[in-house]
Amino acid sequence: MIYLDNSATSYPKPPEVFEAYKKAIKYYHSNPGRGGYDNALLTAEKIFEVREKTAVFFGEKQCENVCFTANCTQAINTVIKGILKEGDHVVISDLEHNAVLRPLEKLRLQSKITYDTFTSDFYDEKKTIESFLGCLNDHTKLVFCTHASNVLGVSLPLQKIGKICKERRIIFAVDAAQSGGILLMDKQAFHIDYLCLAAHKGLFAPMGLGVLIGNGSKLETLVEGGTGSQSANAVQPDFMPDRLESGTANVSGIIALGAGIDFIDRTGRENIHKSEKDIILHIYDSFCHCSEINCYVNYEQLAQFSPVLSFNIADVPGEIVAQKLAQQGICVRAGLHCAPLAHRKIGTDACGTVRISPSFFTTEKEINCAISCIKKLI
Amino acid sequence: MIYLDNSATSYPKPPEVFEAYKKAIKYYHSNPGRGGYDNALLTAEKIFEVREKTAVFFGEKQCENVCFTANCTQAINTVIKGILKEGDHVVISDLEHNAVLRPLEKLRLQSKITYDTFTSDFYDEKKTIESFLGCLNDHTKLVFCTHASNVLGVSLPLQKIGKICKERRIIFAVDAAQSGGILLMDKQAFHIDYLCLAAHKGLFAPMGLGVLIGNGSKLETLVEGGTGSQSANAVQPDFMPDRLESGTANVSGIIALGAGIDFIDRTGRENIHKSEKDIILHIYDSFCHCSEINCYVNYEQLAQFSPVLSFNIADVPGEIVAQKLAQQGICVRAGLHCAPLAHRKIGTDACGTVRISPSFFTTEKEINCAISCIKKLI
Repeated sequence: MIYLDNSATSYPKPPEVFEAYKKAIKYYHSNPGRGGYDNALLTAEKIFEVREKTAVFFGEKQCENVCFTANCTQAINTVIKGILKEGDHVVISDLEHNAVLRPLEKLRLQSKITYDTFTSDFYDEKKTIESFLGCLNDHTKLVFCTHASNVLGVSLPLQKIGKICKERRIIFAVDAAQSGGILLMDKQAFHIDYLCLAAHKGLFAPMGLGVLIGNGSKLETLVEGGTGSQSANAVQPDFMPDRLESGTANVSGIIALGAGIDFIDRTGRENIHKSEKDIILHIYDSFCHCSEINCYVNYEQLAQFSPVLSFNIADVPGEIVAQKLAQQGICVRAGLHCAPLAHRKIGTDACGTVRISPSFFTTEKEINCAISCIKKLI
Repeated sequence: MIYLDNSATSYPKPPEVFEAYKKAIKYYHSNPGRGGYDNALLTAEKIFEVREKTAVFFGEKQCENVCFTANCTQAINTVIKGILKEGDHVVISDLEHNAVLRPLEKLRLQSKITYDTFTSDFYDEKKTIESFLGCLNDHTKLVFCTHASNVLGVSLPLQKIGKICKERRIIFAVDAAQSGGILLMDKQAFHIDYLCLAAHKGLFAPMGLGVLIGNGSKLETLVEGGTGSQSANAVQPDFMPDRLESGTANVSGIIALGAGIDFIDRTGRENIHKSEKDIILHIYDSFCHCSEINCYVNYEQLAQFSPVLSFNIADVPGEIVAQKLAQQGICVRAGLHCAPLAHRKIGTDACGTVRISPSFFTTEKEINCAISCIKKLI
């Protein structure tokens, strides 16, 4: 099997993640923040360590502002519904995932909010910023942007967008599901108020864990319940992380996330990114000599991108291509990848694309084999 | 270590759960419902198997009505916020957890809903039903009851309450966090519309997984996002389970839950319950000869209860008792256990209780050691 669907979830995980995950269920087996006995305290300490580690990794000063969610989608919903009130206006990019689009569309259909979509230019940041500025109005309360497209890998000029939001006192939230652990992300330097992450992609944790980083103490809560704190009070605590963490957490997932961040720190995020970027450039290089393959993006011209390459072979439906590759043990995803806006932008909203997303663990041999199989399909 | 905090989360897990959980990350490592290659399909099939198994175990005919959530709290919030509209009235029991109380209180403070609390009588079902009936009014849309109190173990006459709800066309939802896998639960026979479960207690899965069983296709969604289905549509799908399952699921947790249910099926739920019930009766028997120990409930008089026993030693704060026991390696929880209503009922809202919650794996030796340590404290 040649696994090239790391944008859906990463595989394999680093051995230390697997070890941490196995140990978690045996040695950190109590419900943290609920009991006062040794193992409950030990488990709570371990969770706190991961909170601290995550805060440092993503440039958040207050580690209590790191909260753990079911997945990145839950983090995004928590931000959108925690901030927006009737009459608010939102600006998003034309690369957003359904995790951003669907909650906003729901609020729009309820006539609660309006939103506008700016046009990103892959090769000209100035044009992107111009379009972005054109979307802002006096009611704009929130800007929500993906860090990197899950369809095309292209990234947005977050630092510039963040600076503008800060100057205009607009809340800036980022969906870094695809880029976390791979592209540089510093919440402070990028002027980000709320950073939403998937733990199971570039951060190497198992599926079923997301992270929301930001001060949630003033957010309306999406979920209320037992927090193990202020239990006599029927009102949700207003302090972080309890305000946004109700019920029992995914303890083994969080502990595995800690091991994932350790792995990235030791390996070097830049090294991981470079290795994955090189793979994409190698694939792109092989593809751009084939007139039958359409890649949509010139990766060589991009300043930075996450390791995702979308393509189609002439007008063959992506599903057929992915199926043929699957028969040869090559795992890629076809379709819209839950991101219809990006497909509308590149004109593939009817047919979708085939997406290749390698990881740090993908070997040259695997990639060459995949390229050769794809070329044979032509 | 003598672990007696299984109401917070169960430990140890059956060996097969641990094995399934370890295997999951290695062999079912793809994002189910996202790719068309072998491992993605295999993982999706495995998830479907667990959905089916869970449906059968809890008496749900449509297995797509089983959906997986971050925890029981998320399941409860999904039901409450998915059903209630302005002007609705809700009835709850006086044993509810903050997972039910806090979301309702939030809606009440926003002047959206009202709710009333009926008084349960531990030994006289008729009185419980009388009080329940007295709370219903023409605006009652939802009744939310715990199956068994997480403080006292006592259970409510769900079947009778469910029947009344059905007759009056009131939606009936149950929080079975404490009882799932232990007490008999048949969603159909109990006339339950929405059943909320914690997977990591009596169902033996790891922490960070809940289950919601019920037809969510008409619920307002709490979370929207990528479902891997109808991706071109910016509106959340209206079919189950996709409607209530956005973003990436806790795949290894779900697979471990399947192994947990297998373990219960093979061991016999009744056998598990009997073994745990016997432990509680043994502790109760030892305690009721000590005038210094207050148990609040006469367990011998109860028809059925989940394996939870709350007590206090004279007027010594519960935290001190739990701390002294922790020093001897005995893990129990002290405090309000996130359920202030139950404490108000038994007059322990200021001091809380010490809670013992054994499991099927608790040995006689462990229990006798714990009893002896508690008696020495006196």
